[in-house]
Amino acid sequence: MESQEIKNLIKLMAKIPGLGPRSARRSVLSLIKNPEKLMLPLAKSLIQVSENIKLCSICGNIDSDVICGICKDEKRDKNTICVVEDITDVWALERSNTYKGKYHILGGVLSAIDGINPEDLRVKELIDNIKINNIKEVILATSATLAGQTTSFYITDLLKDMNLTVSRLAQGIPIGAELDYLDDGTIGAALDSRKILNKK
Amino acid sequence: MESQEIKNLIKLMAKIPGLGPRSARRSVLSLIKNPEKLMLPLAKSLIQVSENIKLCSICGNIDSDVICGICKDEKRDKNTICVVEDITDVWALERSNTYKGKYHILGGVLSAIDGINPEDLRVKELIDNIKINNIKEVILATSATLAGQTTSFYITDLLKDMNLTVSRLAQGIPIGAELDYLDDGTIGAALDSRKILNKK
Repeated sequence: MESQEIKNLIKLMAKIPGLGPRSARRSVLSLIKNPEKLMLPLAKSLIQVSENIKLCSICGNIDSDVICGICKDEKRDKNTICVVEDITDVWALERSNTYKGKYHILGGVLSAIDGINPEDLRVKELIDNIKINNIKEVILATSATLAGQTTSFYITDLLKDMNLTVSRLAQGIPIGAELDYLDDGTIGAALDSRKILNKK
Repeated sequence: MESQEIKNLIKLMAKIPGLGPRSARRSVLSLIKNPEKLMLPLAKSLIQVSENIKLCSICGNIDSDVICGICKDEKRDKNTICVVEDITDVWALERSNTYKGKYHILGGVLSAIDGINPEDLRVKELIDNIKINNIKEVILATSATLAGQTTSFYITDLLKDMNLTVSRLAQGIPIGAELDYLDDGTIGAALDSRKILNKK
């Protein structure tokens, strides 16, 4: 059987989301077969990231500095904040290469079932951020799920007396989708938000 | 966007079989969120394994010693060798908890397409192993694929003049399978190797 050290490594690998016990075993074997090119570089990179990673004190992003690259970037629009649930959402928006403002990461969504209340999210930091940086527009980009929408409504309500524009990402048919394969909710939302092309 | 260090870590993680670029990103994020419990232990475990792992000089298994635990084990049948393709096959057979002999790992299968010839496999070591340890039975446990079967035939031919029994794993219907869902090859093999229960 596997030695104790390998068993331990497989157990740790299996905790990574996307890898179960069986694929963890397979991936450990591929690591063992590539000690110089994959295994040691991976170990070093893990240590480096865990030592250097910090939470940005402004937006909640992770970076190697207490002020992240996006918050530091002078070229980005300082007056617009995009509110997202998690760091992966920042990454996804950055990949789309269309948003040029700043971000604010909530660190989750309101959820009565999971017991996540406004105090558990970075809501107070959002208000502070808006006040200090004289924000003019807040774009709500939480998920189109029940919890995401609830969070979005809660923040809209919280900001209603402040002198700023609050918007949310458009909802509708995803690019490349066929109507036949879409859920009723998406079709309904797309119909409700239809854009008039030519009005008589 | 992600800092350079995180990008580098994602790139390395994406090389692990079973993780693509997207799931690598997700798993890096989960590691970052669990620095003490997951990220650092994983890094340490990777270093430990890469430093201590050795190839068993007898069977080709990986272990923390030059003679692996199975080859060292005095309780196991010294006269039987099970020939497998890879280390994962040893792990699979050990999990089944039915085989009590020794192993010999070929390190692959013959494949004209991939240019893998007998010299590339641990075939010479198998012959030496058989001669030195006075082996009485060789069980061929290569895959039931074309390449696996070819390798099995090649070894059978190589061993035909030696004074030993050569067997292979039985082929047939896997436990729990329904006929309707099985391929024709498996059904054919099971019919050919049918076991007579009561002969008149």
